[in-house]
Amino acid sequence: MTLGRLNHIGVATPSIPAAVALYRDLLGAEAIGEAFDLPAQKVRVCFVDAPNSQIELLEPLGADSPIAKFLEKNPAGGQHHVCFEVADIAAAVADLTAKGARVLGAPRIGAHGTLVVFVHPKDMGGVLVELMETPKEGH
Amino acid sequence: MTLGRLNHIGVATPSIPAAVALYRDLLGAEAIGEAFDLPAQKVRVCFVDAPNSQIELLEPLGADSPIAKFLEKNPAGGQHHVCFEVADIAAAVADLTAKGARVLGAPRIGAHGTLVVFVHPKDMGGVLVELMETPKEGH
Repeated sequence: MTLGRLNHIGVATPSIPAAVALYRDLLGAEAIGEAFDLPAQKVRVCFVDAPNSQIELLEPLGADSPIAKFLEKNPAGGQHHVCFEVADIAAAVADLTAKGARVLGAPRIGAHGTLVVFVHPKDMGGVLVELMETPKEGH
Repeated sequence: MTLGRLNHIGVATPSIPAAVALYRDLLGAEAIGEAFDLPAQKVRVCFVDAPNSQIELLEPLGADSPIAKFLEKNPAGGQHHVCFEVADIAAAVADLTAKGARVLGAPRIGAHGTLVVFVHPKDMGGVLVELMETPKEGH
């Protein structure tokens, strides 16, 4: 496996509209997508573009959302995960598993429509790393 | 202020060599810089390159390092901050301050040799945001 682009950083928030206002009004983000639900992952998602990468704002969709659990510990929100692109998710999972790292569940379709998988933070120095098969047409 | 490139994500670690091994051997990072000390910020730093951005590994330099405090709460390490480029750090500070956001101290020279400043995470949805004046010649 070769480390690909830093596709996005995932940022948990209790309110996407409030977080959008911070990135737009305080930091000057000029390209912000429409928010949408990703029910399979129990999150509502909104992408904020930086020139070379994205911020994925994540709001819980339901009380059993993993983001709801994150916000119990960090009520204001905070950095949730980092997503890198890989060429082939199945090969990446096989490679990681062979090296003794744990992935969380089977690959599934992520917010950009390609397969994603998460690596256990205990095997990545406390960082929750998402791997995403490179989208075919840009991000 | 306009949101610039996501220059890097800052990742705290108790051991840069151990963290480098994870990014190199598990994730397949191919370009990893030499670690160096940044005494003014009480950190030892090592940059891992992704094709479009970087991971800044941060190890404490001394017991009173801000990274030492972070590791007390997160002994395995974890995501510490996110750094975006801005064209003019003084203008960014003036802009943020005028809008009621707090910056932590005066701008100082950061790991890429240009001025940096941190925005208070309480004013950025729980995320510690570093702003870095864009390096003159790439990162």
